[in-house]
Amino acid sequence: MKERITQLLEDKKLAELREELQKINPADLAILLEDMDEKERLLVYRLLPKELAADTFAFMESDMQEGLINGFTDRELREVLEQTFVDDAVDMIEEMPANVINRILRSTDRETRDAINQILNYPKDSAGSIMTIEYVKLSRYLTVADAISRIRRVGTDKETIYTCYVTEYRKLIGMVTVKDLLLAEDDELVEDIMETNVITVNTHDDKEDVAKQMSKYDFMAMPVVDDEGRLVGIVTFDDAIDVLEEETTEDFSKLAAMSPNEDSYFKTSVPIHAKNRIGWLLVLMLSATLSGSVLRHYEAAFQAIPLLVSFIPMLMGIGGNCGSQTSTLVIRGLALDEIHIGDFFRIIWKELRIALIVSVVLAIVNGIRIQLTYHDMTISLIVALSMVGIVILGKLVGGMLPIVAKSLKLDPALMATPLITTILDTCSILIYFGIATHFLALT
Amino acid sequence: MKERITQLLEDKKLAELREELQKINPADLAILLEDMDEKERLLVYRLLPKELAADTFAFMESDMQEGLINGFTDRELREVLEQTFVDDAVDMIEEMPANVINRILRSTDRETRDAINQILNYPKDSAGSIMTIEYVKLSRYLTVADAISRIRRVGTDKETIYTCYVTEYRKLIGMVTVKDLLLAEDDELVEDIMETNVITVNTHDDKEDVAKQMSKYDFMAMPVVDDEGRLVGIVTFDDAIDVLEEETTEDFSKLAAMSPNEDSYFKTSVPIHAKNRIGWLLVLMLSATLSGSVLRHYEAAFQAIPLLVSFIPMLMGIGGNCGSQTSTLVIRGLALDEIHIGDFFRIIWKELRIALIVSVVLAIVNGIRIQLTYHDMTISLIVALSMVGIVILGKLVGGMLPIVAKSLKLDPALMATPLITTILDTCSILIYFGIATHFLALT
Repeated sequence: MKERITQLLEDKKLAELREELQKINPADLAILLEDMDEKERLLVYRLLPKELAADTFAFMESDMQEGLINGFTDRELREVLEQTFVDDAVDMIEEMPANVINRILRSTDRETRDAINQILNYPKDSAGSIMTIEYVKLSRYLTVADAISRIRRVGTDKETIYTCYVTEYRKLIGMVTVKDLLLAEDDELVEDIMETNVITVNTHDDKEDVAKQMSKYDFMAMPVVDDEGRLVGIVTFDDAIDVLEEETTEDFSKLAAMSPNEDSYFKTSVPIHAKNRIGWLLVLMLSATLSGSVLRHYEAAFQAIPLLVSFIPMLMGIGGNCGSQTSTLVIRGLALDEIHIGDFFRIIWKELRIALIVSVVLAIVNGIRIQLTYHDMTISLIVALSMVGIVILGKLVGGMLPIVAKSLKLDPALMATPLITTILDTCSILIYFGIATHFLALT
Repeated sequence: MKERITQLLEDKKLAELREELQKINPADLAILLEDMDEKERLLVYRLLPKELAADTFAFMESDMQEGLINGFTDRELREVLEQTFVDDAVDMIEEMPANVINRILRSTDRETRDAINQILNYPKDSAGSIMTIEYVKLSRYLTVADAISRIRRVGTDKETIYTCYVTEYRKLIGMVTVKDLLLAEDDELVEDIMETNVITVNTHDDKEDVAKQMSKYDFMAMPVVDDEGRLVGIVTFDDAIDVLEEETTEDFSKLAAMSPNEDSYFKTSVPIHAKNRIGWLLVLMLSATLSGSVLRHYEAAFQAIPLLVSFIPMLMGIGGNCGSQTSTLVIRGLALDEIHIGDFFRIIWKELRIALIVSVVLAIVNGIRIQLTYHDMTISLIVALSMVGIVILGKLVGGMLPIVAKSLKLDPALMATPLITTILDTCSILIYFGIATHFLALT
């Protein structure tokens, strides 16, 4: 398809090109435009029918949007903005430089401008910052037939019409889906079929919690109310999915000891990448001083028996990995609301039993391997015993730290791999050389 | 709320309890019932109105469903199943023991039974296995008014009515949303307002790809067709979100060197947990033999200068962490479709520049620290130089391996932390002692 578009563009067959473009989904069009240069892009974009153009615009990355806006006439900009939902406009504005923002705000009507400004004022990660104000409001006294004809009249510029909200003096008193309305009799009243136990969120709630609730309840939209219970907007499911994806990416970053970043890999510049990664690496490097100085303490031991040194990487690796296995599961469980702070002792008890099975298997396999390679029963025994101790410690620390972090209102994901590894590295060496010096009667 | 329910239950105020229960959302009701014992649960469940009961049932974990089914009379079971969507029934059946499955299949009508059997026959992770067959079909020749009244007639037992599919001889020829219908004039024809460029998936497509496409296009439902282009079902957005969540959990498990598991942390038994974790640990343990034997090779070096040993944990830790930072970003980028196989050299070039910045900063800080502690310029220099080499190698290996895995059609997530750490551990030691023996003129 892409080749065909390029061909038509080269041959300047614009009528055919226009025809062809209309068959493409806006999300795919945005990707297609991304591969063109600025001039071609503007040319192709101008061939799109108004509504498709606006939909495509909403799917673009912000730098592409900015480039297009700079090429737009004022009239074109106004046309795009008229077709854009307020929440998408806010997303767009948040990424633009000041001069472009001013041009955008000048091109919107007063009402939209006020709405945009209002949403921009909510805290960065709040429900208010991702909500839209374009939803369908109904009165409780409408009949089903009247409600449907109201939806048909006002629905055009609403982001979703499928969930309608019933308000009285701006307070949210119920909700009704288009499905409920369509399946009801024409002369029933909205107040008789509406759901009155409406689950809502507050404008200041964390957007991640809102997205999680929507996923829990399978909601297509979630009403957002202010402190007085007045309906101020709704969050739609497509934005909720974006939030969940963004938060997952953040968790991945934290698990790999990086500061999270909102842009994609290639959009992020080299210095920013370096900055995001260097912080934790410095912490890890300096805290490794600890395990280093513990090792210094046992210099006599490994000068007497240098073979001891060759098991350090393995034992440290196993300790760190056991810890991160457990902490990853617990962090993910906390994120999915499957694990709670009160489960602390249940987790410890479970991990203890798991650690026993795992450590005994590992110790036996490893003991046999060392015995076969070095024919030294004492070393085999020392490594096997250290293994048991290190695995058990790793599992317990990995299970406890995320819960402790959560109960201290810290982000459990920060307690992941790097911190646990540092703690476990030092402990592993202490356990290993503690056992070794005891058995070998060294210093 | 929970206290109030427990109180009413204790006081046997069943009418009031029934009243109270109806105010609760099905997802919350399922959680509430989870905390009760079997007898209470059945009692409370029987108080729920039919539809709420079925909705709540769909939100329960499979072991709770099984317990309830065992307590149901045949008539109760039939009632629940009548209200259950086919895709939810399939989810349920997949987790049940054979005798319960037989009872369920005996209690459904012939048509539903055929549909369930058909879906059960699709491969485990295919689009077919998560689709529902309950969607609204329209003919192209209907007027908008007729289409709306058809939806009102047949909509009750459809999972979604908001996207309707236009078929001709069972082939999918277009789709139209309820919003389109409501906003069109009554006498327009469906064929004139329908979208004819419909994006579809095949029954055998991977369910993860389907979910990703739905998230890309912001679809509420995705039509599933067979090899002949005939419409056989739809995947709804709530199931797509579940798939995305499940896959993310799997990726987290793989990143932490565990076999992924479908059940939640507490639902998984201790032996299963141990089994999932022990495989990779054994691999890591045995491959650490490699770094161990490299260390044996340099025994003379650290017997001469034991201080060298104390920097091993730090250098290995930094190498592994640098590698996993990069590999995590690349794996996530591949999962989100932001990075492709063709970006191989772009990633290497980017990581090389990042590694230069990061390694120089780390080397300087660390060199100064060692100089201040040990006043040994040679050692400081050796460790600093090793640091630069190890960080660069870590970033490059971390960036390359996931892409290589992807191009070999392996799961990139498997190339994560554990494998990279093992490779980097050995390389780090080689670089470190290579530089050290060179500078200190040791063997």
